[in-house]
Amino acid sequence: MQRLLVQFEQRLEEILERLASCSADGEGVTRLLYTPEWLSGQQTVKEIMEQAGLEASFDEVGNLFGKLKGATERGSIMTGSHIDTVVNGGKYDGAYGIAAGIVALGYLKDQYGMPLRALEVVSLCEEEGSRFPMAYWGSGAITGERSFSQTAELTDKEGIFFAKAMADCGFGEGSGLTAKRRDIDAFIELHIEQGIVLESERKQVGIVNAIVGQRRFQVEVAGEASHAGTTPMNRRKDALEGAAAIISRLRHEAMVFGPPLVATAGTIRISPNAPNVVPGYAAFTVDIRHADRTALESFCAGFHEAASSLAGERGLGYRCREWFREDPVPMDKELGAKLRSICEDLNIEVKEMSSGAGHDAQMLARLCPSAMLFVPSRGGVSHAPQEYTSPRELAIGVLALTALLYQLGYEEERR
Amino acid sequence: MQRLLVQFEQRLEEILERLASCSADGEGVTRLLYTPEWLSGQQTVKEIMEQAGLEASFDEVGNLFGKLKGATERGSIMTGSHIDTVVNGGKYDGAYGIAAGIVALGYLKDQYGMPLRALEVVSLCEEEGSRFPMAYWGSGAITGERSFSQTAELTDKEGIFFAKAMADCGFGEGSGLTAKRRDIDAFIELHIEQGIVLESERKQVGIVNAIVGQRRFQVEVAGEASHAGTTPMNRRKDALEGAAAIISRLRHEAMVFGPPLVATAGTIRISPNAPNVVPGYAAFTVDIRHADRTALESFCAGFHEAASSLAGERGLGYRCREWFREDPVPMDKELGAKLRSICEDLNIEVKEMSSGAGHDAQMLARLCPSAMLFVPSRGGVSHAPQEYTSPRELAIGVLALTALLYQLGYEEERR
Repeated sequence: MQRLLVQFEQRLEEILERLASCSADGEGVTRLLYTPEWLSGQQTVKEIMEQAGLEASFDEVGNLFGKLKGATERGSIMTGSHIDTVVNGGKYDGAYGIAAGIVALGYLKDQYGMPLRALEVVSLCEEEGSRFPMAYWGSGAITGERSFSQTAELTDKEGIFFAKAMADCGFGEGSGLTAKRRDIDAFIELHIEQGIVLESERKQVGIVNAIVGQRRFQVEVAGEASHAGTTPMNRRKDALEGAAAIISRLRHEAMVFGPPLVATAGTIRISPNAPNVVPGYAAFTVDIRHADRTALESFCAGFHEAASSLAGERGLGYRCREWFREDPVPMDKELGAKLRSICEDLNIEVKEMSSGAGHDAQMLARLCPSAMLFVPSRGGVSHAPQEYTSPRELAIGVLALTALLYQLGYEEERR
Repeated sequence: MQRLLVQFEQRLEEILERLASCSADGEGVTRLLYTPEWLSGQQTVKEIMEQAGLEASFDEVGNLFGKLKGATERGSIMTGSHIDTVVNGGKYDGAYGIAAGIVALGYLKDQYGMPLRALEVVSLCEEEGSRFPMAYWGSGAITGERSFSQTAELTDKEGIFFAKAMADCGFGEGSGLTAKRRDIDAFIELHIEQGIVLESERKQVGIVNAIVGQRRFQVEVAGEASHAGTTPMNRRKDALEGAAAIISRLRHEAMVFGPPLVATAGTIRISPNAPNVVPGYAAFTVDIRHADRTALESFCAGFHEAASSLAGERGLGYRCREWFREDPVPMDKELGAKLRSICEDLNIEVKEMSSGAGHDAQMLARLCPSAMLFVPSRGGVSHAPQEYTSPRELAIGVLALTALLYQLGYEEERR
């Protein structure tokens, strides 16, 4: 087992370093959808897949599949993650899940030859939404949640159209395999946690029971701009103070509600925004997440009530508009149970947890039983050049993944 | 008395309308220092002064004096205010004090001829600090608090140097009377309140006992930017939430402290300022004012203590830098007493109050006994095109001013 882990460590490091070199200039790794760096990333993955003995092919949107054919015609067992990054991101977000899949499938092929059912590793073209204002393009094209028609108006911040960028990389409708799939029977995504739960609880692997649902709101507080010197305190309609009271309350209520609920005011803008003027207007965003839909909605309702009454007490106007909504996505219970028993057998310390971030697995879960496995992120840092997971932690994740793929791909189903 | 008030109303309206027409294009009145509009404003005032029988002359910085010579060589009794405005300001801020002085002196001359001591109305060149980053240029040049050497580096936002703008209007060192004066024995400024105290308490005139002192701070709260989905609530170092708690506390403490204290967080800026990132940094300004220096400093000390402990409880860094400081300036008690007794005689409803805004009188007070008289501002609105005081309210202020100027200028001193 020690030798296997060392072998996994070396293979992973080799792949992750090659992928990290496919990056735009700057700090960390920047590999935005349909850029030259992205294309070189996918071409590198293709080479690596082929070197590992996998049959590699692109679909029409640029998703790349490395396939190990199965002895039966049953649907594929798929693993993988996304190849794109945020601007100045890290080496592990997305890339780790792809590298892990290649290492696992390469190992299984070498050890056990052809599986009973097809195994695939996918390098999804896009997940982050960093270049165009649309996320989950890769997994969404597979499930049918995303389609070419939705991209017609999209441009990046330089005004380049989505279709043009895609065509420049050689992709577009009919350019490769049809993106939409019906032949996937399970999806397992291995990913860094991007949080500090595993590290702080000293667990080696997180088994995700659900990907949280999100609600995002634009909150507006309207008061009256007035002279900071001549307006007595009891005559003010201070929109910033009203916003501050609401933001303070948001944190308090979230602490009381308890995990996995998280609530964040991430942006704020006020007007007139001058040192000697009482602010007449404040707008801020609120992002609320929970793994359970009922809990999420009950918290949001309580927040709106508290916020509007804090504004009302101050004679301030209050408006709240939901601009983003995603329901929680539970991961497959059976796959979760298999992973728990595998980790127990392999003596891997497990934490059952929800994912506070969105992932491709939440899209695939609409299509087939899906599972997610986390490995620790040092200091919880992600989307930054400092993103780090140790080689051993990375290898342990691959060990668990490999065992699950073996069960699903090589063993007869136990019914 | 009714006829006199009607006469004052008409004269004031006539002058204020002529001055309002000396404005840059746009909403409201815009008359920034050393612009063509400003020059046309001062030239208009000069004509009006001369029509009222006053001897008009400029000093070297562009302050304009309308003088009624006295029978003795004693120092002048001066009234007046500033001719400049903010961008898109109102018709009354500054202009009213000048118009009032001209009306009062014109009336006294017509009724009583030459006074015992000289009476002057001044149209100060600048008070607002709206064009160049320096305020009280007009009154400061008279007292000696401002000098040409302080303007050497100053440019407006188009890069035009102060000296160039001044020279283009025909002013500069030695171009007129020496700005610095030693021969002023009293200064009385009539001004709109720019607040809602008089209106809400239904008083006709405010007698200012002090102009508040101010302290302005830049507060910085440092936390850690982190993922809004993957960072549990109890693991966050949310700089915006810390700032919000401090801003809420500021208002609470100010309400408890009581009038005339006012405290304002007028600007805020956070980073990274993204909906799905816990803010790692927040900076905001705090403006604190009180008419009593000890009270002001005691409140500031209490605020710093509360703010730094709110930050500390949250594991946040806290820094606070003072960037503006002005001590309270008491107005002359004897002049205040004269004004009270005048108003009592004239049946004018008086409110004794502090001024929350800065005024030229706070500069002149360093030179000679000074007084300020407020008239109501409708809705407390100022520095806006909607600024308004009714003709009758304006006239009542002039009535009180005229009576005081009569006492000081025509009556033998009662010792």
